[in-house]
Amino acid sequence: RDESCAKVDPPLPELPDPLPLNVTGLPALLLTKEECEITETEPTELVKKMANGELTAVTVVKSYLRRAALAQKVLNCLTELLWDRAIARATLMDEYFQKTGKTLGPFHGLPISSKEHFSVKDRYVNASFVAWAEKKVDKDAHVIEVMESLGAVLFARSTQPQTIMHVETETVLYGTSYNPYNRNLSCGGSTGGEGALLGFNATPLGMGTDIGGSARWPAASNGRYGMRPTAGRVPMGGLIGPNAGAESISGAIGPLAQSRRVMEYFMKYVIGSKPWITEPGLLPVPWREQALTPGKLKIGVLWSDGVVNPLPPVKRALQIVVDALKKGVPGWDIEVVPWEPKQHDYAWELTSQLYYTDGGEKVLELLASVGEEPLPLTKWILTENPYVRKQDIHSLWELHTKRDAYRTMYAEYWNESGKNDGHPADIILCPAAPGVACLHGTAKYWAYTSHWNFLDYPGAVFPVTTVDQELDVREKDYTPMNNQDKFFYDIYSPEKFVDAPINLQLVARRFNDDVLLQAMKIVENALG
Amino acid sequence: RDESCAKVDPPLPELPDPLPLNVTGLPALLLTKEECEITETEPTELVKKMANGELTAVTVVKSYLRRAALAQKVLNCLTELLWDRAIARATLMDEYFQKTGKTLGPFHGLPISSKEHFSVKDRYVNASFVAWAEKKVDKDAHVIEVMESLGAVLFARSTQPQTIMHVETETVLYGTSYNPYNRNLSCGGSTGGEGALLGFNATPLGMGTDIGGSARWPAASNGRYGMRPTAGRVPMGGLIGPNAGAESISGAIGPLAQSRRVMEYFMKYVIGSKPWITEPGLLPVPWREQALTPGKLKIGVLWSDGVVNPLPPVKRALQIVVDALKKGVPGWDIEVVPWEPKQHDYAWELTSQLYYTDGGEKVLELLASVGEEPLPLTKWILTENPYVRKQDIHSLWELHTKRDAYRTMYAEYWNESGKNDGHPADIILCPAAPGVACLHGTAKYWAYTSHWNFLDYPGAVFPVTTVDQELDVREKDYTPMNNQDKFFYDIYSPEKFVDAPINLQLVARRFNDDVLLQAMKIVENALG
Repeated sequence: RDESCAKVDPPLPELPDPLPLNVTGLPALLLTKEECEITETEPTELVKKMANGELTAVTVVKSYLRRAALAQKVLNCLTELLWDRAIARATLMDEYFQKTGKTLGPFHGLPISSKEHFSVKDRYVNASFVAWAEKKVDKDAHVIEVMESLGAVLFARSTQPQTIMHVETETVLYGTSYNPYNRNLSCGGSTGGEGALLGFNATPLGMGTDIGGSARWPAASNGRYGMRPTAGRVPMGGLIGPNAGAESISGAIGPLAQSRRVMEYFMKYVIGSKPWITEPGLLPVPWREQALTPGKLKIGVLWSDGVVNPLPPVKRALQIVVDALKKGVPGWDIEVVPWEPKQHDYAWELTSQLYYTDGGEKVLELLASVGEEPLPLTKWILTENPYVRKQDIHSLWELHTKRDAYRTMYAEYWNESGKNDGHPADIILCPAAPGVACLHGTAKYWAYTSHWNFLDYPGAVFPVTTVDQELDVREKDYTPMNNQDKFFYDIYSPEKFVDAPINLQLVARRFNDDVLLQAMKIVENALG
Repeated sequence: RDESCAKVDPPLPELPDPLPLNVTGLPALLLTKEECEITETEPTELVKKMANGELTAVTVVKSYLRRAALAQKVLNCLTELLWDRAIARATLMDEYFQKTGKTLGPFHGLPISSKEHFSVKDRYVNASFVAWAEKKVDKDAHVIEVMESLGAVLFARSTQPQTIMHVETETVLYGTSYNPYNRNLSCGGSTGGEGALLGFNATPLGMGTDIGGSARWPAASNGRYGMRPTAGRVPMGGLIGPNAGAESISGAIGPLAQSRRVMEYFMKYVIGSKPWITEPGLLPVPWREQALTPGKLKIGVLWSDGVVNPLPPVKRALQIVVDALKKGVPGWDIEVVPWEPKQHDYAWELTSQLYYTDGGEKVLELLASVGEEPLPLTKWILTENPYVRKQDIHSLWELHTKRDAYRTMYAEYWNESGKNDGHPADIILCPAAPGVACLHGTAKYWAYTSHWNFLDYPGAVFPVTTVDQELDVREKDYTPMNNQDKFFYDIYSPEKFVDAPINLQLVARRFNDDVLLQAMKIVENALG
């Protein structure tokens, strides 16, 4: 890592001492004006500037390489910078463009990054395990191949937590990654390095995985966009982990992005490349340009999941969005309806059991093989999790049957939302987490995101506002519903979360990823 | 069963004594001329006649009810006749049609049948287990609901083998079902009752399941059409079995049909009904009316799977089709290329292990709970199968990883078939089984069908010709490749298979069910 960051040319200036808690202002001080402009341009606009010759791919990728190297210095969020690879590829792209006047695809020249979990040819792929520190692969992950075939330039790889199963980012190999808005807070996880890069504007588009919130939580923690698509849409080939062959809960690769638009481009063009031709586990469900029929849009609002209530900032953000939606959006008849939770605690019980149907043996063995100690959040999800135990084939089948029964029940529940007008809800608006970016070591409730993984519904987060010291105060006389709820409320007070972005989540039915992002555009129009 | 058949009105005449081996001529002797005409009309034409008022639904369903009752007498292929339900529904449909002049859907009035495995409201559903002989359900299977919503009339339920895991049809509860072309031969299985009904023209359209060949094998044994779609396209809700929650190899419901056209209608309209809205495990992959681009059609021919060679009649049928294709079809540039097998024995080893990841315990316990003896073919697939053993979670994951590696390898192999011209094969032509309908108790090789289940590729069978006593003789000096090959060759001689139909199979890539059936039309055009 240090070696790859040492290639930064020209080298970065010294950092201010002491570092502020909020480091998002540093690039303006330490990078060139051009670098700041480039890295703060909306990504699809940036592609346009390369496509019309206004910027070269090398200029763009160098700007991101330097900004990411700076992010690494203050946030500890990279596992390596792919300086040589990125410059070489950008150079080729510029040559092609100069020769032909044509671009190499819809992402022509756009730098992209990914969490370390994604295979990169001839590089180490350790999935954060000390035991695998020297593991190398000879092939890029399939989605990297696809994105590069569409013109993108892979330029950085980022941190993820031990076992890739925290929604924060701490490992024995790389330490802890920080939130750029407030370094006392976590950047989220498991795609935490990407989250930190995004919040620092040091990547236009990152790629993460999400089996319980791992793409959405870090995007939300950093006030950006992130999505967990329906499983089987984005290529999964070339992810290396200890639980290969486990398929009770499907993981999915999803984008973390500076804008809704580039997130949508990612989905549209990756699916448009027909990746199922080479990866037969993927599903040939086409992306619909107009998935929503103009007219009515029905949005269910899940104010609480009935287990852990959202904290004041999140509650306020929900109200902001609902008020905006009720004011209306031209061309749309928007109906906002309450959405009651259905046994989210039971769903979490099944979900977390199904994450580790071997009782976590493989993971624990891999840690133990080199004496790597489980970190506290590894213990929380695995050895201290009351639901995790080693299954046998019959208890596994039984869990699958319960999972499928829940999914069928939920489909019926969703259909019922249309019983009066023949128009079931298009999307659900809900929290992305109980709170905003959390204090390090406290991310002990995933069910605002994992619930949708359990159902295999796509979910995406978007920024609404930031923590307000006057508006987001503790409620007097709040009575917690249970110990989990109490845990989060006890921690909360606004001064601990200064400058933290507040995001919310939209959720659509299975395979309605296109509905999800098109509805998000309308919600954003409502917000103005 | 006897009770339901006793409702036949008017009662059936006496059967000839002795019964001929080939009973397909009996309906002409024992049913009315109108009944024969109706039941021998191509099903989509039959729907047209109801839609234009030429025939009533009651007349049509009565004809099928009587013909199915006759089938039962000579072939032992029903578990029950749904006389009252079918007449009641057909009556309602006729009333609706008389009142409105409109049909109730694309299958308006078409009688359909299903294997007993499909739930039917207020009826017994035993999945052939003695232990479940008295088990009742209160809801129709989802696909029955869908088909009835499209206008079909469920009129009969049919036999299947013990454990629903033979490709013949024998149970302790119902005995053995026979092949109408030659009662010395099996009607196939596991959807064997449907196969026998089809061969006897006693159903226009049956519904079966297929996890190893169970829809295709009986359709092929009886010279008709049958299909195993890609999993997740046709609703599976309401199938009751002992291995619920097992998902290593996906079963699929598929049509068994009198014509290619009605088989295609089944797929098109069932998928068109968007069943994934209520059954969230299904995949919203649309049916394409024109899945093949007119122009080139490339067909790979798998002459043998390298484990068991096809017997003389099947080999001859392959040659007939290849010769016809080489003569060409107007509007199509057809290229026939050889298709080499890739480790079909290894694939079977994994497939049969993955059928019973609990070592078959659940099934064996259910049999033992009432002292039901495993029949020889149950022992063959389960207790005598060298690959079946109880897995633990880790060995299960390992099997999944091997399965997925094979699937990826095969996808690459298929892509390579286009390396010279950019046009990979559209379909594969191959045997449906080593031979034609088999002698009772000898169906001990499934891999010509199960291979495609393992890959989750759709496959469909179609009739080519029938066994010819002069052309289909044993080869002199045939040297078997191995013991399995020897088993089938030793059994074979044409006089044992008099009148047996010969079918072949077409296979397409995953989710190319539409390509499959549209290519089958071209193959049929080639055959003339």
